[in-house]
Amino acid sequence: MSDLSSQDLLAKLDEVLQARKQESADSSYVASLYAGGIDKILKKIGEEAAETIMAAKDGNPEQIVYEITDLWFHSLVLLAQQNLSSADVLQELERRFGLSGLVEKAQRTN
Amino acid sequence: MSDLSSQDLLAKLDEVLQARKQESADSSYVASLYAGGIDKILKKIGEEAAETIMAAKDGNPEQIVYEITDLWFHSLVLLAQQNLSSADVLQELERRFGLSGLVEKAQRTN
Amino acid sequence: MSDLSSQDLLAKLDEVLQARKQESADSSYVASLYAGGIDKILKKIGEEAAETIMAAKDGNPEQIVYEITDLWFHSLVLLAQQNLSSADVLQELERRFGLSGLVEKAQRTN
Amino acid sequence: MSDLSSQDLLAKLDEVLQARKQESADSSYVASLYAGGIDKILKKIGEEAAETIMAAKDGNPEQIVYEITDLWFHSLVLLAQQNLSSADVLQELERRFGLSGLVEKAQRTN
Repeated sequence: MSDLSSQDLLAKLDEVLQARKQESADSSYVASLYAGGIDKILKKIGEEAAETIMAAKDGNPEQIVYEITDLWFHSLVLLAQQNLSSADVLQELERRFGLSGLVEKAQRTN
Repeated sequence: MSDLSSQDLLAKLDEVLQARKQESADSSYVASLYAGGIDKILKKIGEEAAETIMAAKDGNPEQIVYEITDLWFHSLVLLAQQNLSSADVLQELERRFGLSGLVEKAQRTN
Repeated sequence: MSDLSSQDLLAKLDEVLQARKQESADSSYVASLYAGGIDKILKKIGEEAAETIMAAKDGNPEQIVYEITDLWFHSLVLLAQQNLSSADVLQELERRFGLSGLVEKAQRTN
Repeated sequence: MSDLSSQDLLAKLDEVLQARKQESADSSYVASLYAGGIDKILKKIGEEAAETIMAAKDGNPEQIVYEITDLWFHSLVLLAQQNLSSADVLQELERRFGLSGLVEKAQRTN
Protein backbone atom coordinates (compact mmCIF):
# COMPACT_ATOMS: atom_id res chain seq x y z
CA MET A 1 0.00 0.00 0.00
CA SER A 2 1.32 3.40 -1.00
CA ASP A 3 2.05 5.89 1.73
CA LEU A 4 3.08 8.67 -0.62
CA SER A 5 2.25 12.10 0.70
CA SER A 6 2.73 15.58 -0.73
CA GLN A 7 5.89 15.87 1.35
CA ASP A 8 7.23 12.64 -0.21
CA LEU A 9 6.48 13.89 -3.70
CA LEU A 10 8.21 17.20 -3.09
CA ALA A 11 11.18 15.37 -1.55
CA LYS A 12 11.44 13.34 -4.75
CA LEU A 13 11.48 16.55 -6.79
CA ASP A 14 14.21 17.92 -4.49
CA GLU A 15 16.31 14.87 -5.32
CA VAL A 16 15.81 15.31 -9.06
CA LEU A 17 16.74 19.01 -8.78
CA GLN A 18 19.87 18.22 -6.74
CA ALA A 19 20.93 15.59 -9.29
CA ARG A 20 20.64 18.08 -12.15
CA LYS A 21 23.32 20.23 -10.52
CA GLN A 22 25.89 17.80 -11.91
CA GLU A 23 24.67 18.16 -15.47
CA SER A 24 25.94 20.46 -18.21
CA ALA A 25 23.99 23.68 -18.85
CA ASP A 26 22.57 22.50 -22.16
CA SER A 27 21.31 19.16 -20.91
CA SER A 28 18.06 20.42 -19.37
CA TYR A 29 16.07 23.55 -18.55
CA VAL A 30 16.92 23.17 -14.84
CA ALA A 31 20.64 22.82 -15.60
CA SER A 32 20.43 26.01 -17.68
CA LEU A 33 18.86 27.81 -14.71
CA TYR A 34 21.73 26.75 -12.42
CA ALA A 35 24.22 27.83 -15.07
CA GLY A 36 22.55 31.24 -15.26
CA GLY A 37 23.11 31.68 -11.55
CA ILE A 38 20.76 32.92 -8.86
CA ASP A 39 19.69 36.02 -10.88
CA LYS A 40 18.23 33.86 -13.63
CA ILE A 41 16.22 31.87 -11.07
CA LEU A 42 15.03 35.00 -9.22
CA LYS A 43 13.97 36.69 -12.45
CA LYS A 44 11.77 33.67 -13.16
CA ILE A 45 10.22 33.89 -9.67
CA GLY A 46 9.29 37.53 -10.32
CA GLU A 47 7.92 36.63 -13.73
CA GLU A 48 5.85 33.69 -12.53
CA ALA A 49 4.37 35.73 -9.65
CA ALA A 50 3.25 38.32 -12.23
CA GLU A 51 1.75 35.58 -14.40
CA THR A 52 -0.07 34.06 -11.40
CA ILE A 53 -1.64 37.45 -10.70
CA MET A 54 -2.66 37.79 -14.36
CA ALA A 55 -4.18 34.29 -14.51
CA ALA A 56 -6.15 34.96 -11.32
CA LYS A 57 -7.47 38.27 -12.68
CA ASP A 58 -8.53 36.38 -15.81
CA GLY A 59 -10.40 33.91 -13.58
CA ASN A 60 -8.90 31.00 -15.50
CA PRO A 61 -8.55 27.98 -13.13
CA GLU A 62 -6.30 25.88 -15.42
CA GLN A 63 -4.02 28.87 -15.93
CA ILE A 64 -3.92 29.63 -12.18
CA VAL A 65 -2.79 26.06 -11.46
CA TYR A 66 -0.26 26.25 -14.30
CA GLU A 67 1.28 29.52 -13.09
CA ILE A 68 1.36 28.53 -9.40
CA THR A 69 3.10 25.33 -10.51
CA ASP A 70 5.66 27.47 -12.35
CA LEU A 71 6.09 29.60 -9.21
CA TRP A 72 6.55 26.59 -6.92
CA PHE A 73 8.81 24.86 -9.44
CA HIS A 74 11.19 27.83 -9.60
CA SER A 75 11.01 28.13 -5.78
CA LEU A 76 12.16 24.51 -5.57
CA VAL A 77 15.03 25.27 -7.98
CA LEU A 78 16.04 28.22 -5.77
CA LEU A 79 15.93 26.01 -2.66
CA ALA A 80 18.05 23.34 -4.38
CA GLN A 81 20.53 25.92 -5.66
CA GLN A 82 20.92 27.16 -2.06
CA ASN A 83 21.22 23.62 -0.68
CA LEU A 84 17.86 23.99 1.00
CA SER A 85 14.82 21.79 0.35
CA SER A 86 11.04 21.59 0.26
CA ALA A 87 11.17 20.05 3.75
CA ASP A 88 12.43 23.37 5.13
CA VAL A 89 9.40 25.14 3.69
CA LEU A 90 6.93 22.44 4.70
CA GLN A 91 8.25 22.45 8.26
CA GLU A 92 7.79 26.21 8.45
CA LEU A 93 4.24 25.85 7.04
CA GLU A 94 3.54 23.15 9.62
CA ARG A 95 4.84 25.30 12.44
CA ARG A 96 2.62 28.20 11.42
CA PHE A 97 -0.47 25.99 11.24
CA GLY A 98 0.31 24.34 14.55
CA LEU A 99 0.59 20.95 12.84
CA SER A 100 4.10 20.02 13.94
CA GLY A 101 5.39 16.55 13.34
CA LEU A 102 4.16 15.57 9.86
CA VAL A 103 7.22 16.58 7.87
CA GLU A 104 9.59 15.22 10.47
CA LYS A 105 7.65 11.94 10.48
CA ALA A 106 7.79 11.74 6.70
CA GLN A 107 11.55 12.24 6.77
CA ARG A 108 11.92 9.53 9.41
CA THR A 109 10.01 7.02 7.33
CA ASN A 110 11.89 7.80 4.12
CA MET B 1 -4.56 0.57 8.14
CA SER B 2 -2.94 3.95 7.85
CA ASP B 3 -5.14 6.91 6.98
CA LEU B 4 -3.06 8.72 4.38
CA SER B 5 -4.88 12.04 4.56
CA SER B 6 -3.83 12.41 8.18
CA GLN B 7 -0.22 12.36 7.02
CA ASP B 8 -0.48 14.65 4.02
CA LEU B 9 0.59 18.09 5.14
CA LEU B 10 -0.54 20.15 2.13
CA ALA B 11 -3.90 18.35 1.95
CA LYS B 12 -4.37 19.17 5.64
CA LEU B 13 -3.58 22.83 5.00
CA ASP B 14 -6.08 22.85 2.11
CA GLU B 15 -8.73 21.60 4.55
CA VAL B 16 -7.87 24.23 7.14
CA LEU B 17 -7.97 26.97 4.49
CA GLN B 18 -11.34 25.76 3.16
CA ALA B 19 -12.77 25.69 6.69
CA ARG B 20 -11.73 29.29 7.31
CA LYS B 21 -13.97 30.41 4.46
CA GLN B 22 -16.91 30.05 6.87
CA GLU B 23 -15.36 32.31 9.48
CA SER B 24 -15.88 36.03 10.02
CA ALA B 25 -13.23 38.39 8.62
CA ASP B 26 -11.86 39.33 12.02
CA SER B 27 -11.46 35.77 13.30
CA SER B 28 -8.12 35.02 11.60
CA TYR B 29 -5.57 36.38 9.14
CA VAL B 30 -6.77 33.93 6.46
CA ALA B 31 -10.40 34.97 6.97
CA SER B 32 -9.33 38.62 6.55
CA LEU B 33 -7.64 37.70 3.24
CA TYR B 34 -10.84 36.09 1.93
CA ALA B 35 -12.84 39.12 3.07
CA GLY B 36 -10.44 41.40 1.18
CA GLY B 37 -11.18 39.47 -2.00
CA ILE B 38 -8.82 38.16 -4.64
CA ASP B 39 -6.96 41.50 -4.97
CA LYS B 40 -5.78 41.34 -1.37
CA ILE B 41 -4.45 37.81 -1.90
CA LEU B 42 -2.77 38.68 -5.23
CA LYS B 43 -1.12 41.76 -3.73
CA LYS B 44 0.43 39.49 -1.09
CA ILE B 45 1.71 37.10 -3.78
CA GLY B 46 3.46 40.01 -5.52
CA GLU B 47 4.86 41.22 -2.22
CA GLU B 48 6.15 37.82 -1.11
CA ALA B 49 7.81 37.18 -4.48
CA ALA B 50 9.65 40.50 -4.07
CA GLU B 51 10.70 39.51 -0.54
CA THR B 52 11.89 36.09 -1.73
CA ILE B 53 14.10 37.83 -4.32
CA MET B 54 15.45 40.18 -1.65
CA ALA B 55 16.19 37.37 0.81
CA ALA B 56 18.00 35.40 -1.90
CA LYS B 57 20.11 38.43 -2.88
CA ASP B 58 20.99 38.79 0.83
CA GLY B 59 22.10 35.14 0.82
CA ASN B 60 20.15 34.54 4.03
CA PRO B 61 18.97 30.88 4.11
CA GLU B 62 16.53 31.26 7.04
CA GLN B 63 14.98 34.29 5.35
CA ILE B 64 14.75 32.49 1.97
CA VAL B 65 12.83 29.64 3.61
CA TYR B 66 10.63 32.11 5.48
CA GLU B 67 9.74 34.10 2.35
CA ILE B 68 9.15 31.04 0.14
CA THR B 69 6.86 29.76 2.90
CA ASP B 70 4.96 33.06 2.74
CA LEU B 71 4.77 32.73 -1.05
CA TRP B 72 3.48 29.14 -0.93
CA PHE B 73 1.09 29.95 1.91
CA HIS B 74 -0.56 32.77 -0.03
CA SER B 75 -0.62 30.53 -3.14
CA LEU B 76 -2.55 27.96 -1.10
CA VAL B 77 -4.98 30.68 0.03
CA LEU B 78 -5.49 31.68 -3.62
CA LEU B 79 -6.10 28.04 -4.60
CA ALA B 80 -8.63 27.62 -1.76
CA GLN B 81 -10.38 30.88 -2.63
CA GLN B 82 -10.76 29.58 -6.20
CA ASN B 83 -11.94 26.13 -5.04
CA LEU B 84 -8.69 24.62 -6.26
CA SER B 85 -6.17 22.76 -4.11
CA SER B 86 -2.52 21.87 -3.62
CA ALA B 87 -3.24 18.52 -5.30
CA ASP B 88 -3.85 20.34 -8.60
CA VAL B 89 -0.40 21.93 -8.36
CA LEU B 90 1.33 18.73 -7.23
CA GLN B 91 -0.17 16.78 -10.12
CA GLU B 92 1.07 19.38 -12.58
CA LEU B 93 4.54 19.31 -10.95
CA GLU B 94 4.52 15.54 -11.20
CA ARG B 95 3.54 15.62 -14.84
CA ARG B 96 6.40 17.98 -15.66
CA PHE B 97 8.95 15.87 -13.83
CA GLY B 98 7.78 12.74 -15.61
CA LEU B 99 6.68 11.27 -12.28
CA SER B 100 3.03 10.95 -13.33
CA GLY B 101 0.80 8.83 -11.20
CA LEU B 102 2.26 9.50 -7.77
CA VAL B 103 -0.30 12.06 -6.62
CA GLU B 104 -3.15 10.14 -8.18
CA LYS B 105 -1.98 6.98 -6.42
CA ALA B 106 -1.68 8.83 -3.14
CA GLN B 107 -5.18 10.23 -3.51
CA ARG B 108 -6.57 6.79 -4.38
CA THR B 109 -5.39 5.36 -1.10
CA ASN B 110 -7.17 8.12 0.83
CA MET C 1 16.75 79.06 -25.90
CA SER C 2 15.53 75.56 -25.15
CA ASP C 3 12.68 75.20 -22.73
CA LEU C 4 12.67 71.42 -22.82
CA SER C 5 11.62 69.90 -19.52
CA SER C 6 11.23 66.30 -18.35
CA GLN C 7 7.52 66.59 -19.08
CA ASP C 8 8.31 67.66 -22.68
CA LEU C 9 10.71 64.76 -23.16
CA LEU C 10 8.17 62.25 -21.86
CA ALA C 11 5.48 63.80 -24.07
CA LYS C 12 7.79 63.23 -27.06
CA LEU C 13 8.16 59.59 -26.08
CA ASP C 14 4.37 59.29 -25.77
CA GLU C 15 4.09 60.51 -29.37
CA VAL C 16 6.64 57.99 -30.60
CA LEU C 17 4.83 55.19 -28.75
CA GLN C 18 1.45 56.23 -30.16
CA ALA C 19 2.89 56.33 -33.68
CA ARG C 20 4.20 52.79 -33.36
CA LYS C 21 0.66 51.53 -32.88
CA GLN C 22 0.20 51.83 -36.65
CA GLU C 23 3.22 49.66 -37.42
CA SER C 24 3.34 45.95 -38.13
CA ALA C 25 4.32 43.65 -35.25
CA ASP C 26 7.73 42.82 -36.71
CA SER C 27 8.79 46.41 -37.40
CA SER C 28 9.95 47.25 -33.87
CA TYR C 29 10.14 45.95 -30.31
CA VAL C 30 7.32 48.31 -29.25
CA ALA C 31 5.11 47.14 -32.11
CA SER C 32 5.73 43.53 -31.04
CA LEU C 33 4.61 44.44 -27.49
CA TYR C 34 1.34 45.91 -28.78
CA ALA C 35 0.82 42.84 -30.95
CA GLY C 36 1.33 40.60 -27.91
CA GLY C 37 -1.48 42.44 -26.15
CA ILE C 38 -1.68 43.76 -22.63
CA ASP C 39 -0.46 40.51 -21.05
CA LYS C 40 2.88 40.78 -22.83
CA ILE C 41 3.33 44.35 -21.56
CA LEU C 42 2.28 43.47 -18.00
CA LYS C 43 4.61 40.48 -17.88
CA LYS C 44 7.47 42.85 -18.75
CA ILE C 45 6.44 45.24 -15.95
CA GLY C 46 6.59 42.38 -13.45
CA GLU C 47 9.95 41.27 -14.83
CA GLU C 48 11.51 44.74 -14.79
CA ALA C 49 10.33 45.38 -11.22
CA ALA C 50 12.08 42.15 -10.19
CA GLU C 51 15.23 43.23 -12.02
CA THR C 52 15.14 46.68 -10.39
CA ILE C 53 15.01 44.99 -6.98
CA MET C 54 17.93 42.73 -7.94
CA ALA C 55 20.05 45.63 -9.24
CA ALA C 56 19.40 47.61 -6.05
CA LYS C 57 20.37 44.65 -3.85
CA ASP C 58 23.57 44.38 -5.91
CA GLY C 59 24.21 48.07 -5.18
CA ASN C 60 25.02 48.66 -8.86
CA PRO C 61 24.09 52.29 -9.80
CA GLU C 62 24.36 51.84 -13.60
CA GLN C 63 22.19 48.72 -13.37
CA ILE C 64 19.63 50.46 -11.14
CA VAL C 65 19.25 53.26 -13.70
CA TYR C 66 19.06 50.73 -16.53
CA GLU C 67 16.34 48.65 -14.85
CA ILE C 68 14.26 51.65 -13.71
CA THR C 69 14.46 52.89 -17.31
CA ASP C 70 13.12 49.50 -18.45
CA LEU C 71 10.34 49.77 -15.86
CA TRP C 72 9.35 53.31 -16.89
CA PHE C 73 9.65 52.45 -20.58
CA HIS C 74 7.22 49.54 -20.28
CA SER C 75 4.94 51.73 -18.12
CA LEU C 76 4.88 54.26 -20.97
CA VAL C 77 4.02 51.47 -23.43
CA LEU C 78 1.16 50.38 -21.14
CA LEU C 79 -0.10 53.98 -20.91
CA ALA C 80 0.05 54.36 -24.72
CA GLN C 81 -1.69 51.02 -25.26
CA GLN C 82 -4.50 52.23 -22.98
CA ASN C 83 -4.67 55.65 -24.69
CA LEU C 84 -3.27 57.27 -21.57
CA SER C 85 -0.05 59.27 -21.40
CA SER C 86 2.88 60.32 -19.25
CA ALA C 87 1.04 63.61 -18.58
CA ASP C 88 -1.60 61.69 -16.60
CA VAL C 89 1.11 60.24 -14.35
CA LEU C 90 3.02 63.52 -14.02
CA GLN C 91 -0.15 65.39 -13.07
CA GLU C 92 -0.89 62.82 -10.37
CA LEU C 93 2.73 63.11 -9.11
CA GLU C 94 2.36 66.89 -9.09
CA ARG C 95 -0.89 66.72 -7.18
CA ARG C 96 0.67 64.51 -4.51
CA PHE C 97 3.65 66.82 -4.09
CA GLY C 98 1.47 69.93 -3.99
CA LEU C 99 3.19 71.31 -7.10
CA SER C 100 0.11 71.77 -9.27
CA GLY C 101 0.42 73.66 -12.52
CA LEU C 102 3.73 72.55 -14.04
CA VAL C 103 2.41 69.80 -16.28
CA GLU C 104 -0.60 71.84 -17.29
CA LYS C 105 1.68 74.79 -18.11
CA ALA C 106 3.97 72.58 -20.19
CA GLN C 107 0.98 71.32 -22.18
CA ARG C 108 -0.22 74.85 -22.76
CA THR C 109 3.13 75.98 -24.11
CA ASN C 110 3.52 73.00 -26.41
CA MET D 1 14.77 84.85 -18.99
CA SER D 2 12.95 81.74 -17.92
CA ASP D 3 14.47 79.61 -15.18
CA LEU D 4 14.12 76.13 -16.58
CA SER D 5 14.60 74.26 -13.31
CA SER D 6 11.48 75.90 -11.93
CA GLN D 7 9.49 74.27 -14.75
CA ASP D 8 10.97 70.79 -14.64
CA LEU D 9 8.62 68.64 -12.62
CA LEU D 10 10.77 65.54 -12.12
CA ALA D 11 13.85 67.62 -11.27
CA LYS D 12 11.76 69.39 -8.65
CA LEU D 13 10.61 66.08 -7.19
CA ASP D 14 14.24 64.91 -7.05
CA GLU D 15 15.04 68.02 -5.00
CA VAL D 16 12.14 67.47 -2.63
CA LEU D 17 13.13 63.82 -2.18
CA GLN D 18 16.77 64.73 -1.50
CA ALA D 19 15.69 67.35 1.06
CA ARG D 20 13.60 64.81 2.95
CA LYS D 21 16.74 62.76 3.63
CA GLN D 22 17.57 65.27 6.39
CA GLU D 23 14.23 64.83 8.12
CA SER D 24 13.33 62.54 11.01
CA ALA D 25 11.61 59.25 10.17
CA ASP D 26 8.25 60.31 11.56
CA SER D 27 8.07 63.65 9.72
CA SER D 28 6.82 62.29 6.38
CA TYR D 29 6.07 59.11 4.46
CA VAL D 30 9.23 59.57 2.36
CA ALA D 31 11.36 60.04 5.47
CA SER D 32 9.89 56.80 6.88
CA LEU D 33 10.88 54.99 3.66
CA TYR D 34 14.49 56.18 3.98
CA ALA D 35 14.50 55.17 7.64
CA GLY D 36 13.27 51.69 6.68
CA GLY D 37 16.26 51.32 4.39
CA ILE D 38 16.47 50.05 0.85
CA ASP D 39 14.43 46.90 1.60
CA LYS D 40 11.39 48.96 2.54
CA ILE D 41 11.63 50.91 -0.74
CA LEU D 42 12.17 47.76 -2.84
CA LYS D 43 9.25 45.98 -1.21
CA LYS D 44 7.05 48.90 -2.27
CA ILE D 45 8.35 48.68 -5.87
CA GLY D 46 7.38 45.00 -5.97
CA GLU D 47 3.98 45.79 -4.47
CA GLU D 48 3.21 48.68 -6.84
CA ALA D 49 4.22 46.63 -9.90
CA ALA D 50 1.74 43.95 -8.77
CA GLU D 51 -0.96 46.60 -8.30
CA THR D 52 -0.25 48.10 -11.74
CA ILE D 53 -0.76 44.66 -13.27
CA MET D 54 -4.00 44.22 -11.34
CA ALA D 55 -5.35 47.65 -12.35
CA ALA D 56 -4.53 46.95 -16.00
CA LYS D 57 -6.28 43.59 -15.90
CA ASP D 58 -9.30 45.38 -14.39
CA GLY D 59 -9.18 47.79 -17.35
CA ASN D 60 -9.56 50.73 -14.96
CA PRO D 61 -7.79 53.81 -16.48
CA GLU D 62 -7.84 55.95 -13.29
CA GLN D 63 -6.43 53.05 -11.29
CA ILE D 64 -3.74 52.35 -13.92
CA VAL D 65 -2.58 55.98 -13.72
CA TYR D 66 -2.71 55.85 -9.91
CA GLU D 67 -0.63 52.67 -9.66
CA ILE D 68 1.95 53.71 -12.28
CA THR D 69 2.30 56.96 -10.32
CA ASP D 70 2.98 54.90 -7.18
CA LEU D 71 5.52 52.84 -9.12
CA TRP D 72 7.33 55.90 -10.50
CA PHE D 73 7.16 57.67 -7.15
CA HIS D 74 8.86 54.79 -5.33
CA SER D 75 11.40 54.54 -8.21
CA LEU D 76 12.24 58.22 -7.61
CA VAL D 77 12.67 57.52 -3.89
CA LEU D 78 15.03 54.64 -4.74
CA LEU D 79 17.01 56.89 -7.10
CA ALA D 80 17.26 59.61 -4.42
CA GLN D 81 18.26 57.11 -1.76
CA GLN D 82 21.08 55.94 -4.07
CA ASN D 83 22.13 59.53 -4.91
CA LEU D 84 20.85 59.07 -8.44
CA SER D 85 18.12 61.14 -10.08
CA SER D 86 15.33 61.19 -12.63
CA ALA D 87 17.76 62.80 -15.11
CA ASP D 88 19.76 59.55 -15.21
CA VAL D 89 16.63 57.64 -16.22
CA LEU D 90 15.46 60.28 -18.71
CA GLN D 91 18.86 60.31 -20.43
CA GLU D 92 18.78 56.54 -20.77
CA LEU D 93 15.20 56.72 -22.14
CA GLU D 94 16.35 59.38 -24.62
CA ARG D 95 19.29 57.29 -25.73
CA ARG D 96 17.04 54.30 -26.41
CA PHE D 97 14.54 56.37 -28.39
CA GLY D 98 17.30 57.89 -30.47
CA LEU D 99 16.48 61.33 -29.09
CA SER D 100 19.91 61.85 -27.54
CA GLY D 101 20.80 65.32 -26.49
CA LEU D 102 17.45 66.57 -25.30
CA VAL D 103 18.01 66.05 -21.56
CA GLU D 104 21.60 67.26 -21.79
CA LYS D 105 20.45 70.37 -23.63
CA ALA D 106 17.73 71.00 -21.07
CA GLN D 107 20.23 70.66 -18.24
CA ARG D 108 22.70 73.03 -19.98
CA THR D 109 20.15 75.81 -20.01
CA ASN D 110 19.59 75.49 -16.25
